[in-house]
Amino acid sequence: MTEPQLRHLLSISDLSRTMAEQILKTAQAFHEIGKRPVRKVPTLRGKTVINVFYEASTRTRTSFELAGKRLSADVVNIGGSSSSTSKGESLRDTVLTLDAMHASVIVLRHAVSGAAHYVARNTRAAVINAGDGMHEHPTQALLDVFTIRQHKGNDLGGLTVTICGDIQHSRVARSNVQLLRLLGARVRLAGPRTLLPHRTEALGVETFDRLEPALEGADVVMMLRIQRERLGAALFPSSREYARYFGLNARRLSLASPEAIVMHPGPINRGVEISDDVADGPHSVILGQVEAGVAVRMAVLYFLASEPGAEATPA
Amino acid sequence: MTEPQLRHLLSISDLSRTMAEQILKTAQAFHEIGKRPVRKVPTLRGKTVINVFYEASTRTRTSFELAGKRLSADVVNIGGSSSSTSKGESLRDTVLTLDAMHASVIVLRHAVSGAAHYVARNTRAAVINAGDGMHEHPTQALLDVFTIRQHKGNDLGGLTVTICGDIQHSRVARSNVQLLRLLGARVRLAGPRTLLPHRTEALGVETFDRLEPALEGADVVMMLRIQRERLGAALFPSSREYARYFGLNARRLSLASPEAIVMHPGPINRGVEISDDVADGPHSVILGQVEAGVAVRMAVLYFLASEPGAEATPA
Amino acid sequence: MTEPQLRHLLSISDLSRTMAEQILKTAQAFHEIGKRPVRKVPTLRGKTVINVFYEASTRTRTSFELAGKRLSADVVNIGGSSSSTSKGESLRDTVLTLDAMHASVIVLRHAVSGAAHYVARNTRAAVINAGDGMHEHPTQALLDVFTIRQHKGNDLGGLTVTICGDIQHSRVARSNVQLLRLLGARVRLAGPRTLLPHRTEALGVETFDRLEPALEGADVVMMLRIQRERLGAALFPSSREYARYFGLNARRLSLASPEAIVMHPGPINRGVEISDDVADGPHSVILGQVEAGVAVRMAVLYFLASEPGAEATPA
Repeated sequence: MTEPQLRHLLSISDLSRTMAEQILKTAQAFHEIGKRPVRKVPTLRGKTVINVFYEASTRTRTSFELAGKRLSADVVNIGGSSSSTSKGESLRDTVLTLDAMHASVIVLRHAVSGAAHYVARNTRAAVINAGDGMHEHPTQALLDVFTIRQHKGNDLGGLTVTICGDIQHSRVARSNVQLLRLLGARVRLAGPRTLLPHRTEALGVETFDRLEPALEGADVVMMLRIQRERLGAALFPSSREYARYFGLNARRLSLASPEAIVMHPGPINRGVEISDDVADGPHSVILGQVEAGVAVRMAVLYFLASEPGAEATPA
Repeated sequence: MTEPQLRHLLSISDLSRTMAEQILKTAQAFHEIGKRPVRKVPTLRGKTVINVFYEASTRTRTSFELAGKRLSADVVNIGGSSSSTSKGESLRDTVLTLDAMHASVIVLRHAVSGAAHYVARNTRAAVINAGDGMHEHPTQALLDVFTIRQHKGNDLGGLTVTICGDIQHSRVARSNVQLLRLLGARVRLAGPRTLLPHRTEALGVETFDRLEPALEGADVVMMLRIQRERLGAALFPSSREYARYFGLNARRLSLASPEAIVMHPGPINRGVEISDDVADGPHSVILGQVEAGVAVRMAVLYFLASEPGAEATPA
Repeated sequence: MTEPQLRHLLSISDLSRTMAEQILKTAQAFHEIGKRPVRKVPTLRGKTVINVFYEASTRTRTSFELAGKRLSADVVNIGGSSSSTSKGESLRDTVLTLDAMHASVIVLRHAVSGAAHYVARNTRAAVINAGDGMHEHPTQALLDVFTIRQHKGNDLGGLTVTICGDIQHSRVARSNVQLLRLLGARVRLAGPRTLLPHRTEALGVETFDRLEPALEGADVVMMLRIQRERLGAALFPSSREYARYFGLNARRLSLASPEAIVMHPGPINRGVEISDDVADGPHSVILGQVEAGVAVRMAVLYFLASEPGAEATPA
């Protein structure tokens, strides 16, 4: 069996269905490592993973940092305020610098859509897009699908996944729609009409400007984080009004399949897009997503940074 | 010999006398490692230590980071401004996230008293309280006692320890009083009347609203850091006035035992609570406290994170 | 062959010609490691390298961090805003604290000239000056010379090196002048008259208040970064005027030797001290400098932190 020949992970469209399946399968093996007493394998010893986060993040940065360290890579974090970005250095010059230091993998979060693609064109390192503006966040989609498969089985054909929130501006939604469609799931998008994308027929998804019909019989309900900075803007109602029409609560969740799982990429705005009882309730798999995140990122780092010919399965 | 069964270290009251003695004994072994050419043992390889510091700190964060790394653990730092706290995530959700990433130990510093207890109730990880508001800072007390024992012998019975400063608001004092009493030392508390605790009889300590009588014959003089942010507040005189009445200088120190040691948790406000000549003089063991800090934290990490049945003494 | 007995690296004047040659030779061996699939050697396992950066930096801090990690040292970063410096702790007390924690090497960047020398007098750790105010930046000079030797051969005798910019306030220039002179190169300094040093005869260099004559026949052209914060000050023309008279562009570069190399310590102000076509052109070795930086810092860490009697050449 040949391994996926993956040079970067910038967008879900970089992945064939086979590649996606192989990443998910490898992540399964790494998922077990997190539960062991010794959460470490020597797979990427002597590789250099550089986390370049231009936007604040705890969970994603920590998830990649742990993924790298548990693979025995050397991990270096570069943040916003203490870095040369404050001296006005361009993104390209920063990347050329990290390339010259022989980074193996650059993990990039940046506010500008397309930043990761731009970086990838300027380095020999493998680049992982950890969120670029309103564009994509492919490892989030992979960890979401990993989590769905844990609960619903490996075949997503026939599953109905409802994604609700500010679809139009969400990189999480954009990556998920592509990956879910690639793997055969049915996707429904729900949100205020001003925040729904146009021309969704091409994506093969259904859109709803009310939450209730979108939830009917859904197997998976994925709530998006409301970006508080958008509140008050023209496209967006108030936080209270949003919760009233698009917040997931127990009553609304009862419209979905009785075995529906509830997901959220975090951090949660409790009482806005999701109520406390649902976030902490028996249908919630939100913390399982976090756990899956480390495993999926280990798998992606593994495919991008390990030597050709190395063993596919972790020790 | 059975090991202490320690689940978290939140407060000195978590410790029996036997447990405290065992941590101190183990710290002694780790203390030697800091002096070796190779300052590293494989004890916690594959464990994950996450430092979550909501308050600025160099010495405590660095001390825990070095302790973890010298035990071969993977150490991740999470700070205030670059983390999701800036997105308004609750402490509980942050902790549940770290738990889902399989943190072995969470080291927490937080401005709110009780924060570490709250965290401990929400995670499978072991939690170390690295300072919670005005409540406790147990590893500081352990390193202080470790340092006292280096100079005064292992039996604290009969020793007189004078703690001076803003006792009422000091987590360092609160933890030290408990540990010193547990191990049999006599404790005197000195400070401006407005900053002394009430009902100290229950603690088994004596209080003094002047420094001089509290120093008479003392074996150990522990000066607390004045929180400059309290200066100017109603309870507190000016920095100059504080130094005049409660600052430790050579003249005042001469009232203590001729072999008295002088301690301070750092960072020092030179010329306020302690004069330069005393801070840098022959009685000062302040840097010894810093050195002890790494060893004591290695011991605490060891007891909290190592597998049951692992060897008690470091290699 | 005996190794250089180097206690600290504070200034190029700490180095004899033999020592400098040995560091450069060792760096050559480490330079190969960066190109290997496994970029790591166990040389400094169990050593503690503490990066103390009081000024923002990506490239230098990351370069030292990677250098330490690729030598298997434990590396700890201490920055400005999240550290005790915000509590007003003195530099000396911070250093004494790190010393007590058994730092092997302290890498210091500080805005005050002489800060590294001051630190070195207060610690048992080896100290590397990673830039102190307007004074020195010795590892930058070593990596610059390393890069020159890669392109021009090991013997610098007979080479003409032109350094252009705000010479008077540049720690990069100060360190380079000394090292280039030590190794036999001819040095020309060019810049606005107000920014040229006085009494340069003692340094054995020529000065020019116009760029063109300084470039004539030069083998190496080293452009300095313009500190934007100086723009608008009395000594300094506007950014546009500076570019017009002292910016390096293709037309001016044609005055130098046809095989001239162009250097810059980074980060670059594109369009100010250097034009895009030159920065990215065939004469530019700017990224080679970055690459050399990690290797040179590995060599310096190696000489400062490894045990006496350890092998001189990396495995």
